[in-house]
Amino acid sequence: IQTRPDGGREQRKGAPEVILGATKETAQIIAMAHGLLLSTGRAIISRLRPDSIAPLQKEFQAYTVRTLEAARAMVIYSPDYQRKSTGGQVGVISAGTSDIPMAEEAKLIAEEMGCTVTTIYDVGVAGLHRLLAPLRDLLTSGVDVIIVAAGMDGALPSVVAGLSPVPVIGLPTSIGYGLGGNGVAALLSMLQTCAPGLSVVNIDNGVGAGITAALVANRVAQAREHQSQ
Amino acid sequence: IQTRPDGGREQRKGAPEVILGATKETAQIIAMAHGLLLSTGRAIISRLRPDSIAPLQKEFQAYTVRTLEAARAMVIYSPDYQRKSTGGQVGVISAGTSDIPMAEEAKLIAEEMGCTVTTIYDVGVAGLHRLLAPLRDLLTSGVDVIIVAAGMDGALPSVVAGLSPVPVIGLPTSIGYGLGGNGVAALLSMLQTCAPGLSVVNIDNGVGAGITAALVANRVAQAREHQSQ
Amino acid sequence: IQTRPDGGREQRKGAPEVILGATKETAQIIAMAHGLLLSTGRAIISRLRPDSIAPLQKEFQAYTVRTLEAARAMVIYSPDYQRKSTGGQVGVISAGTSDIPMAEEAKLIAEEMGCTVTTIYDVGVAGLHRLLAPLRDLLTSGVDVIIVAAGMDGALPSVVAGLSPVPVIGLPTSIGYGLGGNGVAALLSMLQTCAPGLSVVNIDNGVGAGITAALVANRVAQAREHQSQ
Amino acid sequence: IQTRPDGGREQRKGAPEVILGATKETAQIIAMAHGLLLSTGRAIISRLRPDSIAPLQKEFQAYTVRTLEAARAMVIYSPDYQRKSTGGQVGVISAGTSDIPMAEEAKLIAEEMGCTVTTIYDVGVAGLHRLLAPLRDLLTSGVDVIIVAAGMDGALPSVVAGLSPVPVIGLPTSIGYGLGGNGVAALLSMLQTCAPGLSVVNIDNGVGAGITAALVANRVAQAREHQSQ
Amino acid sequence: IQTRPDGGREQRKGAPEVILGATKETAQIIAMAHGLLLSTGRAIISRLRPDSIAPLQKEFQAYTVRTLEAARAMVIYSPDYQRKSTGGQVGVISAGTSDIPMAEEAKLIAEEMGCTVTTIYDVGVAGLHRLLAPLRDLLTSGVDVIIVAAGMDGALPSVVAGLSPVPVIGLPTSIGYGLGGNGVAALLSMLQTCAPGLSVVNIDNGVGAGITAALVANRVAQAREHQSQ
Amino acid sequence: IQTRPDGGREQRKGAPEVILGATKETAQIIAMAHGLLLSTGRAIISRLRPDSIAPLQKEFQAYTVRTLEAARAMVIYSPDYQRKSTGGQVGVISAGTSDIPMAEEAKLIAEEMGCTVTTIYDVGVAGLHRLLAPLRDLLTSGVDVIIVAAGMDGALPSVVAGLSPVPVIGLPTSIGYGLGGNGVAALLSMLQTCAPGLSVVNIDNGVGAGITAALVANRVAQAREHQSQ
Amino acid sequence: IQTRPDGGREQRKGAPEVILGATKETAQIIAMAHGLLLSTGRAIISRLRPDSIAPLQKEFQAYTVRTLEAARAMVIYSPDYQRKSTGGQVGVISAGTSDIPMAEEAKLIAEEMGCTVTTIYDVGVAGLHRLLAPLRDLLTSGVDVIIVAAGMDGALPSVVAGLSPVPVIGLPTSIGYGLGGNGVAALLSMLQTCAPGLSVVNIDNGVGAGITAALVANRVAQAREHQSQ
Amino acid sequence: IQTRPDGGREQRKGAPEVILGATKETAQIIAMAHGLLLSTGRAIISRLRPDSIAPLQKEFQAYTVRTLEAARAMVIYSPDYQRKSTGGQVGVISAGTSDIPMAEEAKLIAEEMGCTVTTIYDVGVAGLHRLLAPLRDLLTSGVDVIIVAAGMDGALPSVVAGLSPVPVIGLPTSIGYGLGGNGVAALLSMLQTCAPGLSVVNIDNGVGAGITAALVANRVAQAREHQSQ
Ligand SMILES: Nc1ncnc2c1ncn2[C@@H]1O[C@H](COP(=O)(O)O)[C@@H](O)[C@H]1O
Ligand SMILES: Nc1ncnc2c1ncn2[C@@H]1O[C@H](COP(=O)(O)O)[C@@H](O)[C@H]1O
Ligand SMILES: Nc1ncnc2c1ncn2[C@@H]1O[C@H](COP(=O)(O)O)[C@@H](O)[C@H]1O
Ligand SMILES: Nc1ncnc2c1ncn2[C@@H]1O[C@H](COP(=O)(O)O)[C@@H](O)[C@H]1O
Ligand SMILES: [Mg+2]
Ligand SMILES: [Mg+2]
Ligand SMILES: [Mg+2]
Ligand SMILES: [Mg+2]
Ligand SMILES: [Mg+2]
Ligand SMILES: [Mg+2]
Ligand SMILES: [Mg+2]
Ligand SMILES: [Mg+2]
Repeated sequence: IQTRPDGGREQRKGAPEVILGATKETAQIIAMAHGLLLSTGRAIISRLRPDSIAPLQKEFQAYTVRTLEAARAMVIYSPDYQRKSTGGQVGVISAGTSDIPMAEEAKLIAEEMGCTVTTIYDVGVAGLHRLLAPLRDLLTSGVDVIIVAAGMDGALPSVVAGLSPVPVIGLPTSIGYGLGGNGVAALLSMLQTCAPGLSVVNIDNGVGAGITAALVANRVAQAREHQSQ
Repeated sequence: IQTRPDGGREQRKGAPEVILGATKETAQIIAMAHGLLLSTGRAIISRLRPDSIAPLQKEFQAYTVRTLEAARAMVIYSPDYQRKSTGGQVGVISAGTSDIPMAEEAKLIAEEMGCTVTTIYDVGVAGLHRLLAPLRDLLTSGVDVIIVAAGMDGALPSVVAGLSPVPVIGLPTSIGYGLGGNGVAALLSMLQTCAPGLSVVNIDNGVGAGITAALVANRVAQAREHQSQ
Repeated sequence: IQTRPDGGREQRKGAPEVILGATKETAQIIAMAHGLLLSTGRAIISRLRPDSIAPLQKEFQAYTVRTLEAARAMVIYSPDYQRKSTGGQVGVISAGTSDIPMAEEAKLIAEEMGCTVTTIYDVGVAGLHRLLAPLRDLLTSGVDVIIVAAGMDGALPSVVAGLSPVPVIGLPTSIGYGLGGNGVAALLSMLQTCAPGLSVVNIDNGVGAGITAALVANRVAQAREHQSQ
Repeated sequence: IQTRPDGGREQRKGAPEVILGATKETAQIIAMAHGLLLSTGRAIISRLRPDSIAPLQKEFQAYTVRTLEAARAMVIYSPDYQRKSTGGQVGVISAGTSDIPMAEEAKLIAEEMGCTVTTIYDVGVAGLHRLLAPLRDLLTSGVDVIIVAAGMDGALPSVVAGLSPVPVIGLPTSIGYGLGGNGVAALLSMLQTCAPGLSVVNIDNGVGAGITAALVANRVAQAREHQSQ
Repeated sequence: IQTRPDGGREQRKGAPEVILGATKETAQIIAMAHGLLLSTGRAIISRLRPDSIAPLQKEFQAYTVRTLEAARAMVIYSPDYQRKSTGGQVGVISAGTSDIPMAEEAKLIAEEMGCTVTTIYDVGVAGLHRLLAPLRDLLTSGVDVIIVAAGMDGALPSVVAGLSPVPVIGLPTSIGYGLGGNGVAALLSMLQTCAPGLSVVNIDNGVGAGITAALVANRVAQAREHQSQ
Repeated sequence: IQTRPDGGREQRKGAPEVILGATKETAQIIAMAHGLLLSTGRAIISRLRPDSIAPLQKEFQAYTVRTLEAARAMVIYSPDYQRKSTGGQVGVISAGTSDIPMAEEAKLIAEEMGCTVTTIYDVGVAGLHRLLAPLRDLLTSGVDVIIVAAGMDGALPSVVAGLSPVPVIGLPTSIGYGLGGNGVAALLSMLQTCAPGLSVVNIDNGVGAGITAALVANRVAQAREHQSQ
Repeated sequence: IQTRPDGGREQRKGAPEVILGATKETAQIIAMAHGLLLSTGRAIISRLRPDSIAPLQKEFQAYTVRTLEAARAMVIYSPDYQRKSTGGQVGVISAGTSDIPMAEEAKLIAEEMGCTVTTIYDVGVAGLHRLLAPLRDLLTSGVDVIIVAAGMDGALPSVVAGLSPVPVIGLPTSIGYGLGGNGVAALLSMLQTCAPGLSVVNIDNGVGAGITAALVANRVAQAREHQSQ
Repeated sequence: IQTRPDGGREQRKGAPEVILGATKETAQIIAMAHGLLLSTGRAIISRLRPDSIAPLQKEFQAYTVRTLEAARAMVIYSPDYQRKSTGGQVGVISAGTSDIPMAEEAKLIAEEMGCTVTTIYDVGVAGLHRLLAPLRDLLTSGVDVIIVAAGMDGALPSVVAGLSPVPVIGLPTSIGYGLGGNGVAALLSMLQTCAPGLSVVNIDNGVGAGITAALVANRVAQAREHQSQ
């Protein structure tokens, strides 16, 4: 079966190709990963089916492999791969503990795109007192953009966007049940936000949130860098 | 056409019959109002079509009439009607200015059921600093139950429920547009709340929120009253 | 992984923190339970995945453990934990036998918040004659608030709210199939109720129904108590 | 424009062709009505746009015309048309006063198919005490089938089907607002009924409910008639 | 756990109580079945989970047991149970072979209610020539009512209702995939039927279709019987 | 405001650019029409708002103008415009009279693309006997492709596709009400068709159905033509 | 259980009967396959459940069997079966690698109907540069119709239809997650296409896309053939 | 009626308060505008009801007023208001001419936040050749972020994001009809994008797209500015 992984994407877009594991056979993933390792020195795989993880780790035991079990994500590096550091600053906040895997997926991608990522987890609206101090610290530290992962009511991104002078990316998660469950209420609430400066990605799309945040942060960092020269 | 307005409802339920104006001819509303005035001394009409308002005011000019234009609600009292005062304390909060008509409808019903109602309007999550002080005052004043009206993202009821030790009733409003508009996102977000002690009524159902809040407050007030005897 | 269970919630809200088991690893649940036991003497866990039950019972065998198998809920008490009794009176009714687990979850939470709970099960609208006598007894006994759990057509809460002078909380359950199945028809029917004084929580949200009912009942009980002093 | 009204339907089906007015020009309706009058002696039109009513009444002033303003239905008879009487017995119940127009549309069709129709209006679940006596009378009178029109929560058809030994046809109406409004909750609740022997037609489909009920009643009546010979 | 199977339903409604197996433990089903066998001599169980079948057959090996594996339905008879025969005539048609289990469930219930059932299977609209002759025979044989089971496009019930002078009950099945799959398109298409005299039950609700059809047929048969005396 | 009507589309695609009138100011439509008349000698406008029709007819009174009032479509020709004739044969069938405007829109576009169009109107599934003879004639006449317009149950396209050896294009129309109304049930039923060789376009998209049918018929005609040379 | 596989369909429709495996028992599939092999020399089965594949291969080991594991499709030929070749030319394009199984299913059916199929895979809109050259080649080669399989955003069919002068059939696939997942966004986007000449089939309906494409291509080929004689 | 327009938002968020006109009385809008003019020197109003425009222009004739008729937006400046210029560079692209009003609303907000905005309009996917050259120019000019407004299929943002190394914000518009109409398909397709670096706002939310883009561009510009000092 013919596949054309987009090895040139990083060059063109400043964002790496990511292999979507969920809908592929393990053998197919392995072949695509070898292709990307050859052309770019790194293969990132998201949404791995649990049974694909062990065979992949076995296949690439000679490589450096970074696995996020809960987020079902994996990065494989060629021995000589050197991850760039751009100076971009990304904040990642999660509403609950159940949202952490998706937050971690976003963090991983932003890091692979060269950003420094700071996290604040489990500070949802049911107890807002937990949010205020860490958020103030995050903003003071000079973060360029903030990702907020939230399921259930999806209220946290609106609250954070109301309090922050940087762009906020809402990452709805599939946590929740009943009507509006699986992240639907969270996504809709974010789309309907009253707060300014909140844009969103699809439910559980940590990859998309991470890439968008890193594109923003890296562009700011690049301007900063030129400045400091 | 045969109608059976439930004049005995107040006796049985502690909540008055309310004539739903939207789906009735003006003549039909007038007939039903006369019926309720005869049996209970008061007629409450909700969701009046704008063109029904003037004819009703004309018909009942010999009566005391209270009209909430924006909320499209009306109460007509027999000359000798004496509204009871129960001692129940209800708080009503609105997220935006656009949610005020629905909040006012809830307030009207709770007042007609004998409660004292305190309001805080236009304190939505896009600027939470506006909420905290007035909410503290409301809680200190000894309110028995709080209604929170919100459209758009519907995030405010979750925030309030996270901060308040009394039952909170979420009243989603049909403010909002696009996907999840007309109050759908607001309602779903309230149904998915992470905060404890939040129950909801349907979109724009100020009547339902007001009755539920008053049933709670009046039961507490009744217990208080027995105490003070 | 960083978690911040809200040990102070009971103090602040009068409602305990509840660990949502469905989206957490067993190890994570155990860690959070230990945290809550330390700070509050009790850990309540809802929506346990079946495979988490045995490990939890093993881990906490030195503690008192209350398990509701069908409701997938568990409460763990420190040896010296003393559950308070508030005097609040809650009624819980179920339409079918299939709705009993969700009704039991609501009952458990209300009891953990100090209420006395009376139940009437399997009295759905397909045979209303089964409902009338027990409901009359329940109301006579002085119940402060009633929870009605129903799936399928969700008609029972409207019927009960039409007959009862106390606030009613509709608890739609995920019983049902085909269009409107999984509790969607039940929830929508409750939101559209013609009966006064019915508010709702999300599908299968026994925890939310229980907390809301207990907040109401406890506030009434507190007023009663002041009275009897 | 070519039209082929199905004049032979009554012969073939025992149910008359009905002209759906809502999506047709008045001129087109007039042409089709003339066609049906010629071939069958009667033209039934449903869902008339308000502006079509006067022109139709003008056009057919030489004929006997029966208009149901609220139901937006009209029947035109040739001077010599003789409506048959089958002996079929149909009951029609409405939950609220707002559901009466749809109930009346169903009644009209059943009468045009030769049935005798008995009605009970405004007996919804918010006050069940209004239903029990009239329903008992209806069943005692030997009704063959019952139509129950209900909007909002749609609970009444389930209650009636639980109490009646004849087939019940649920007629959801577009009364209601917010989530599940416009009859959606009512229809879904009827589809999810726990009560035996309830089938449904689409929202506001009084024509469909009337035809189905009359087909049932007429078949029973026909068997009865053969008997009495 | 308290259950109240409605043993008097047959008496009251002319339709038997049916135990919904899907949401119950096997032990609970066994207990309820014993209850119904005691009070009515027969227990009907629908939507059995596959793993409940063997234990039930074991438990009731001393009884007569009728199992419809594909329809996941079971009937258990006391040794001396005598099924009545009413003379009601029901036709059951299926569009595809995949719809046969639901058609068989409807047939089983109608038979348990005393009807004679004639079936025509696999005659869907993709090849209408297969339908016409058997349908003509069915109508000639004097059938009182027809159930049509169809998934996918749900077109067959409309076609049959267009050709038959008896009431038709549409039984949408969960056959189908993609948008409108799981029976949704089939149900909606039936609700939107252009053909007269078609009412519907929910997706896969063979029990409901069977009961409704039998109520119709039995009422006709009863009239016929009186006649032949 | 900058617009770029795609004048080269006909060259490139074999299908003309069509101006979507519904979302444009009349002045904007006039400007775009002049542009297309200059570059291609013809301007086709669809979904005209009723109030745009007169001003357009006035503006282009020196041109040949073809207006389909009911379909809200208009074609304006330069005086010297010569419509090509390709030899492609398209059949257009409508289920009801209410579907004729959409069928006419499809016919208009296919004719503008050079096809000969044969129509059969008002032959829906409620009386299939009206369909069979005209369809046989249509197929015998050598039609290359058939469009079937249907609202409500959307059953007719499946029936036609089951009987015809040429590709069939389903054109769902917004005729219908209640659940699945506005063409939703019709579209879903067509997407779920059991019949082979049916593809669909969106609700009321007569333009799309006409273009697709003409692309098919013209390609066949082109092959035929080469043959006859 | 009675089944009526439509052996005459190929004769009548020019398209073969296809057995839908997903909803049938393996034994039932085997029986139907034997029937079709007898009457037509070939049996095509789609949507096989994984556990049906081995038993079928065992049963038909004396036959030629073509299995598409990923597409879960199978064709069984009688030893002497001779597949016709019509000269029809079909192009099949996929957006991602995950869409290939559905594309392959469409290809298989078009081949079984005698067409020659050319494929271009994994050329989605995230990197359009991959599409342009192969598409130009495909069009130059004289393809009669193009199928485009795409999940996620479903954007590729619109892009291809904008660039191609032949009819395009959109085949949405169930690839995608979150809101609009499982192919819903892809299907809706295709239905809303701005590009001319795109019709669609349901999600994952490779069989339907293949049959429609082959009906078009074969009709063109037939005209070409007559020409070359 | 009490309102609290958030005059301090610009200070706190770097984004101005915007008055949502659609759900407010004209008098209320005037009062709020006066408040904002006093505190910030400027009032921005979006989604004006057509009948509010003239009264507002009359009321503020002494002020500088900028009206976007089609976008229903208005900005009122105090005589001495001086709009800042940040150096932020925003690109705005529209798919069709019908999407221009929403694109213009986004442009207006970004300009009010100090950005320079470059537009490319009417370059949808039905003719991609219109897009490529202007997009190349836009990217070369050093744009920091791109907004893409699209209705119907919503495919253009994915195409642009696939070709651009800057963050892209999808702005779905309510252009479209039938299933997925009113912008639903467009929004879902953008949420499902295969292209990296695309985030979205709700349908027709030009204000939100403009603020998010300006927050990004202004942060980059600020870094650039520091550099050039
Ligand atoms: N397959 C079925 N479809 C519809 N209703 C059913 C079915 N099986 C049982 N029922 C009814 O559903 C109700 C189940 O309620 P319960 O068993 O108390 O939870 C009973 O009243 C049954 O008569
Ligand atoms: N705004 C409202 N929201 C919810 N229920 C209402 C409202 N106004 C009236 N009702 C109730 O709805 C029912 C209307 O039924 P009817 O007027 O008979 O059609 C009455 O029982 C009213 O008490
Ligand atoms: N978790 C993810 N979320 C969204 N997009 C993804 C994710 N993982 C991979 N992708 C993208 O989805 C596309 C997968 O297409 P394909 O693998 O060819 O079927 C690639 O372009 C990936 O960059
Ligand atoms: N009735 C219609 N249905 C579908 N597409 C249409 C229709 N009328 C016009 N179009 C196309 O829709 C696009 C309109 O885009 P625009 O006018 O630029 O907003 C043009 O490419 C037209 O060819
Ligand atoms: Mg937490
Ligand atoms: Mg405000
Ligand atoms: Mg029961
Ligand atoms: Mg009433
Ligand atoms: Mg078949
Ligand atoms: Mg007709
Ligand atoms: Mg790919
Ligand atoms: Mg355009």
